[in-house]
Amino acid sequence: MDIQQYMQTVGQNARSASRAMASASTAAKNTALNTIARLVRERSTDLLAANARDLEQARADGLEAAMIDRLTLSAKGVESMAQGLEQIAALPDPIGEITNVKRRPSGIQVGHMRVPLGVIGIIYEARPNVTADAAGLCIKSGNATILRGGKEALHCNQAIAACVRDGLAAAGLPATGVQVIETTDRAAVGALITMPEYVDVIVPRGGKGLIERISREARVPVIKHLDGNCHVYIDDDADAAKVLPIVENAKTQRYGTCNTAESLLVARSVARRFLPDIGRMLARKENEMHACAESLAILKAADIPGAKLVEATEQDWYEEYLAPILAIKIVAGLDEAIAHINKYSSQHTEAIISENYTKSMRFLREVDSASVMINASTRFADGFEYGLGAEIGISTDKIHARGPVGLEGLTSQKWIVFGNGEVRA
Amino acid sequence: MDIQQYMQTVGQNARSASRAMASASTAAKNTALNTIARLVRERSTDLLAANARDLEQARADGLEAAMIDRLTLSAKGVESMAQGLEQIAALPDPIGEITNVKRRPSGIQVGHMRVPLGVIGIIYEARPNVTADAAGLCIKSGNATILRGGKEALHCNQAIAACVRDGLAAAGLPATGVQVIETTDRAAVGALITMPEYVDVIVPRGGKGLIERISREARVPVIKHLDGNCHVYIDDDADAAKVLPIVENAKTQRYGTCNTAESLLVARSVARRFLPDIGRMLARKENEMHACAESLAILKAADIPGAKLVEATEQDWYEEYLAPILAIKIVAGLDEAIAHINKYSSQHTEAIISENYTKSMRFLREVDSASVMINASTRFADGFEYGLGAEIGISTDKIHARGPVGLEGLTSQKWIVFGNGEVRA
Repeated sequence: MDIQQYMQTVGQNARSASRAMASASTAAKNTALNTIARLVRERSTDLLAANARDLEQARADGLEAAMIDRLTLSAKGVESMAQGLEQIAALPDPIGEITNVKRRPSGIQVGHMRVPLGVIGIIYEARPNVTADAAGLCIKSGNATILRGGKEALHCNQAIAACVRDGLAAAGLPATGVQVIETTDRAAVGALITMPEYVDVIVPRGGKGLIERISREARVPVIKHLDGNCHVYIDDDADAAKVLPIVENAKTQRYGTCNTAESLLVARSVARRFLPDIGRMLARKENEMHACAESLAILKAADIPGAKLVEATEQDWYEEYLAPILAIKIVAGLDEAIAHINKYSSQHTEAIISENYTKSMRFLREVDSASVMINASTRFADGFEYGLGAEIGISTDKIHARGPVGLEGLTSQKWIVFGNGEVRA
Repeated sequence: MDIQQYMQTVGQNARSASRAMASASTAAKNTALNTIARLVRERSTDLLAANARDLEQARADGLEAAMIDRLTLSAKGVESMAQGLEQIAALPDPIGEITNVKRRPSGIQVGHMRVPLGVIGIIYEARPNVTADAAGLCIKSGNATILRGGKEALHCNQAIAACVRDGLAAAGLPATGVQVIETTDRAAVGALITMPEYVDVIVPRGGKGLIERISREARVPVIKHLDGNCHVYIDDDADAAKVLPIVENAKTQRYGTCNTAESLLVARSVARRFLPDIGRMLARKENEMHACAESLAILKAADIPGAKLVEATEQDWYEEYLAPILAIKIVAGLDEAIAHINKYSSQHTEAIISENYTKSMRFLREVDSASVMINASTRFADGFEYGLGAEIGISTDKIHARGPVGLEGLTSQKWIVFGNGEVRA
């Protein structure tokens, strides 16, 4: 197979399909989504068989357990895939929305119309559910999509792709509105990210190495998510009743998610008051504490049974552990906390715990991250929790979409002018 | 001078200044802008002397007349620079705006806050007024800025930069909030566009070659403007009274601007009715007509004195002439017009002339350009005409900002969460 030629064809198909996808009615898009959901359920046996084939190969290739885990599709997984598609069908259609129309002195009326981005390329790991989720979000937002899933999930992805194609066709939409790349050759990725004539934006999902490589080599805009090095700052004026629940939830509810707290900053004036209880909670849950010299002394003095205490190094402040480890640092107060976060954070999500109005509002404004919270767990940074209904990912970029990216992040706004024969003076 | 080292320092200064710029009060930003305006006026003699030095060198180097023209700063130019800064001071401050706050079932309240992008790098030609305009827009939108103007304007740019620095300092803002690069070495541009750690977005202004090179080599997001190949489509149901004024204004009001129409599409059923009058207007204004075979026959049959008629080639449909030339093509109707525009247009600005509601609304929705108009001249695609107050450029990108980019295009929205101790279930 000539990969360049194949990708050219895929790109041309996508660009051509994007016109029909953009002007599709809400009813047609919802019919497609609900039909795909039905087909996924009806063909559950086929999907699981295809997945079994992928799993067999993956085990033969000696894939690590975590990857096998993500690759595995269960009957329950099929059902939640179908439900996810139905939920997307139930969301309001963002396309065509007209806002902000104002009459200008010239007589014209100027406003915005929300429109699809066009063609979206999504590059992701061997997780079959992403194939259905990403296809669903792109269909609803009126985009054509090129999906490139991890090669280990090839058979399962192809089986899901067949459901998507048939669902699109049943709704009178082009079957090429969603294309799943049929080769595992990595050159296909290289081609996909360097076709600005056919692809409007790339959304990579996966490890940091993959995303950095794509950002470096892409000739197309990339909506990306790098690290989630999230911070909780306990202010001098923190409400004691809120401190432990928020720190516990932000750090220990799930360790492997990008909105999990990795660093805890504590105002010096309240460090002795709060750190021993936090240390006991973390020790009970077998978390390591990588603490600055000053917090280390307080934690040691608290004599916590089973505490795993390590003196933090500079590198700890940059770390996204994705593990039961929390970096802990004592700061003078709000200014140092903000400066520390703006220096070391990955600009994902940060929270302050404080009862002080002025300091809370300064934190909200001055911390330069995609999500900034007052008195809430960083774990809320999520498309469902924010009310987007679903998300294609969480962006740590600063232009276009920041934070959880839902349907709206897959659109843009063009200018529209309603005139009555006006000309410019 | 070690360019890499110099640009590192500039980048570090900008990143560091961006924190103070982002949290600056509206009053401080407006004081800075009004002070810069005053200083520009007070130092008018210095500015003109610096410009004279640049012009002398430019003439010695044999620069072409159009470039000399753009480089020239007059006393009136200084005054309009000052007025431009005062107008930006008078615009509402977009920063800190909180919108769309909704309570979620978990109890948290989620919304958006508008924030600066951070550090903006602007690369432009030898036009001294851009230095003041760009600095003004970036100050008001709370960004730190690195300006890299054309080397031919170096002395004048440095003189304007001194006003900007002094104005920032007078308002208690960091003088490094706006930095003008002090070397004419082109390696400085290469460095500027590959420092994602210090620069959040690049706005190139200039010729297509420059912009394509920057887009290709940048490691930082680029908000760019490529061509302005704008179309006017005369529909079967066009109001005769609107046709000639709009076509005349869109094509002939100014030839060198990006929102000038370059292609005219005419529905076959009305071509014989409208083309002869259009041909006479264009001939009177000494415009060439590059017409398709069918429209050429109609124009020839009209026997227009002095008409410059040329048969169009495929290349004409792609052309941004920036000159008294109009490409003319007869199409079957709306569908062919939309298909032609979506194939050949640079996605800048397109207009339909029609009294038909359904066809006008389809044109509005299905034409994939930054500005789409009904019964108005394409020349309206402009920051002032749209009510933005000022623009840093016109984007033909699809993500982030489309069309005229004003203060809002230099910002993004982060998520904010107001909590009361909530944790995720």
